[in-house]
Amino acid sequence: MLSYFESELQKYIKSYDKNKFSEAIDYILSNGGKRIRPQLILNLAKSLNKNYKEVIDLAIAIELIHTYSLIHDDLPCMDNDDYRRGKLTLHKKYNEYTALLVGCALLTDAFNVIAKSKTLKNKDKIISFISEKIGAKGMIMGQFLDMEYENKEIDEKTLKIIHKKKTAELIKASLIATLINFDIYNEKYEKIAENLGLIYQIQDDIFDYDTFDNSNYARIIGLDKAKKEILDLKEEIYYLLSDNKEFLEYIDKIINRSY
Amino acid sequence: MLSYFESELQKYIKSYDKNKFSEAIDYILSNGGKRIRPQLILNLAKSLNKNYKEVIDLAIAIELIHTYSLIHDDLPCMDNDDYRRGKLTLHKKYNEYTALLVGCALLTDAFNVIAKSKTLKNKDKIISFISEKIGAKGMIMGQFLDMEYENKEIDEKTLKIIHKKKTAELIKASLIATLINFDIYNEKYEKIAENLGLIYQIQDDIFDYDTFDNSNYARIIGLDKAKKEILDLKEEIYYLLSDNKEFLEYIDKIINRSY
Repeated sequence: MLSYFESELQKYIKSYDKNKFSEAIDYILSNGGKRIRPQLILNLAKSLNKNYKEVIDLAIAIELIHTYSLIHDDLPCMDNDDYRRGKLTLHKKYNEYTALLVGCALLTDAFNVIAKSKTLKNKDKIISFISEKIGAKGMIMGQFLDMEYENKEIDEKTLKIIHKKKTAELIKASLIATLINFDIYNEKYEKIAENLGLIYQIQDDIFDYDTFDNSNYARIIGLDKAKKEILDLKEEIYYLLSDNKEFLEYIDKIINRSY
Repeated sequence: MLSYFESELQKYIKSYDKNKFSEAIDYILSNGGKRIRPQLILNLAKSLNKNYKEVIDLAIAIELIHTYSLIHDDLPCMDNDDYRRGKLTLHKKYNEYTALLVGCALLTDAFNVIAKSKTLKNKDKIISFISEKIGAKGMIMGQFLDMEYENKEIDEKTLKIIHKKKTAELIKASLIATLINFDIYNEKYEKIAENLGLIYQIQDDIFDYDTFDNSNYARIIGLDKAKKEILDLKEEIYYLLSDNKEFLEYIDKIINRSY
């Protein structure tokens, strides 16, 4: 599944004319991410006995959006990070305007990939749902609040809102857009996505417990309570997915990662 | 037409929850732009004997995209401008991350406005066309090349490519998306859009002739030649629009602006 995605992504990258800008796009997209969201999409489709190749353009679009959000998060005016996944961030490898513009290009082209897809169905609805989840009321608001609370005291409730918006919304977009494509409506996948997003963030914060960070959830609520919360969130996912063992198995792999 | 657009835009702005982020959106969208593109859209629809209210969501979306491009153009890593239209640029009024994120939010929400519109038709095709014109092969490439050639010698041909991408592509998106909505295909509007974009840029460069700028078209090709080029481009528009006097009349107003 992963190798299918990687090869389709490479085809997509090669669809750009060769120039300095597309070189930067290639650098950042071929950067060896874990491809969690694309795999969620393809695995969900497969677990529902659908042809997962039908949603490959959705998987690519969501990975473009995820990558755009990371590029911008790393910019000097945001988290100001020099490295990601052991490689130079885009603005360090090239420069700030290239990083700014490549981010926006990936966001824009994500909608292009969906809109002109030959296999996706219900494309208006998919674009409407995704853009809502990642726009001013969704993911971007999460990034904004994250910055607003930098170096400020932050309570558990606010931090949870930020995590939900910053991480869970794009996962929600991934799962629900897949369902929309196949004309399936099942509310519980929203809850599953939300829990997945929260588990992911809390796990990250547990790993980073020792770094000083005012917005580390595990520090704010305590390590034990954080671990307990992950268990509860997992429990709920297991319960909700009792009718889709195949997808549960894949989810299980993600949430029991050891790094 | 303009007051109809302004009142619909205000309704749109008010659809955001009130908070610091939507305040910044309000600041930049209510900033008194000339609303050239929305007016082109509404006037084109009307001149074709169509109900122009049907494309109001397209007009709003295009204005959001235009505003996003200006916000990012003004950022320190791009043109680093403190003022636009006599008011502080967004990153000066707020801060850089707010400007970065508001820009991306407007871009994202533009696609949301189109995708969930109740009056627009052929929405996939509209989104596909617009995203192509403003993405990595279009407007963003124009912004990228503009930065790449900053403080470098630049020839007439390259500058024309930059102008076309940076300005003409969004005008093209405005006109052609309007036609797509009404199931009309007429290639000449692409040419009209291209000429309009070029006229606009050359006019700007003639006004700014006295400021030192290596990428001033009028300086590169000479003032007389620049003026002659505008006349030729206008002439072609008059010829192409001989069957649509109403739209020509509106275009005439824009291209004969005296500021």
